[in-house]
Amino acid sequence: MALVSTRNPLNIGASARAMANFGFARLRVVNPYDVAFREARSAVGAAPLLQSAEEFSSLADAVADCKLVVGTTSVGHRELQHPIRRLEYGARLIRRSLAQAPVGLLFGSEKFGLSNEELSHCHWLMRIPTVDPDLSMNLGQAVALCLYELARDPKAVEARPERIRRAGAAENEQITAMLIDALRQSGYINPVTAASTEEKIRRLVRRLDLAARDAPVLLGMLRQVLWKMGGRE
Amino acid sequence: MALVSTRNPLNIGASARAMANFGFARLRVVNPYDVAFREARSAVGAAPLLQSAEEFSSLADAVADCKLVVGTTSVGHRELQHPIRRLEYGARLIRRSLAQAPVGLLFGSEKFGLSNEELSHCHWLMRIPTVDPDLSMNLGQAVALCLYELARDPKAVEARPERIRRAGAAENEQITAMLIDALRQSGYINPVTAASTEEKIRRLVRRLDLAARDAPVLLGMLRQVLWKMGGRE
Repeated sequence: MALVSTRNPLNIGASARAMANFGFARLRVVNPYDVAFREARSAVGAAPLLQSAEEFSSLADAVADCKLVVGTTSVGHRELQHPIRRLEYGARLIRRSLAQAPVGLLFGSEKFGLSNEELSHCHWLMRIPTVDPDLSMNLGQAVALCLYELARDPKAVEARPERIRRAGAAENEQITAMLIDALRQSGYINPVTAASTEEKIRRLVRRLDLAARDAPVLLGMLRQVLWKMGGRE
Repeated sequence: MALVSTRNPLNIGASARAMANFGFARLRVVNPYDVAFREARSAVGAAPLLQSAEEFSSLADAVADCKLVVGTTSVGHRELQHPIRRLEYGARLIRRSLAQAPVGLLFGSEKFGLSNEELSHCHWLMRIPTVDPDLSMNLGQAVALCLYELARDPKAVEARPERIRRAGAAENEQITAMLIDALRQSGYINPVTAASTEEKIRRLVRRLDLAARDAPVLLGMLRQVLWKMGGRE
């Protein structure tokens, strides 16, 4: 990944952090504002990734070993001379290329993006699908989005959540029994309609779909209430 | 979207910018560090979105009108008491809920994330799939990723690139003819093998798969070379 003519040390730092977050290692900076790069590099807690970033004075040198060079753009009014791919689709193409050879992903300066000269080194451009193309993105955020999408596992959207184990039938019935007991002692259950009330209670407990770990908590609460009402322990 | 106990004005500003980038409008801040919020709000170019942000002193009030409340987490070592969904999957659930009622999406403080008390207001948690769960994300970048994923069009990954029109057969043949002419005049083509050489040239021009707009440029170059070699104009 190459940052071209970046001005703000915070953006260089944020870009390096996003690379670490999503498992990318090789950062190159082309013509950074000297002060910015030195500041970012010497910041407390600067990532090792930032320490090993390579500096280039020409973009051609920075991407010399890349088989594919992709520029990022917010697509302003400029008449662009390249095919433009949306991030979601472009990232898929880049992932495929990365399996064979290094790919250069370029981010331009905060103020002007990539210049036409810089764009001419690119095979194609990638744009982040924001709602208003005239409202540019923050550089660090744009880098994070691109790397997130590159690291994306297409199957993850189908992934089931990490489920919480539900209480089993035995635990639900134990709670039901104790609740019926407590409600009987409290006078809630009318002896005449007791049978149907008890069924209602059983269904209600099933509807709660309790988590397994909540079952003993509820049992403890009921036990205490039963004890207080003077019933059996 | 609610920012809880945010400290850094730059992060409040970056979050507001990401909201504007991806079409979200209602920002709520809960217990921001006063100075940070005032600074972010008064920053030059602060988004209108930031001007209209609502401030709350309690999280319960901030999410009172939400049917679903989702917390974000980097999942450190803390033993979490909630179901956790990966961003890609969780965003799908949130999109579905958003069609019916407001959803609260919470981001905790830069340093500590959401506290256990704050988490207890959430129905479930969402995590960004970073490679190292111990390396937290920058807050502004985390916000941008979540909103990008929420705004995502699942079909976009299939979208074909915005294609550049290719040169047609007539243009390719015009270039071929002029190139053959130039190469003949230059002495490149051996009269004995001329026929097969010309076929090679024709195939080569087809392989170039020229863009339509590049055809006249190449024709112009060839015309100039022909003129210089003293052939027909």
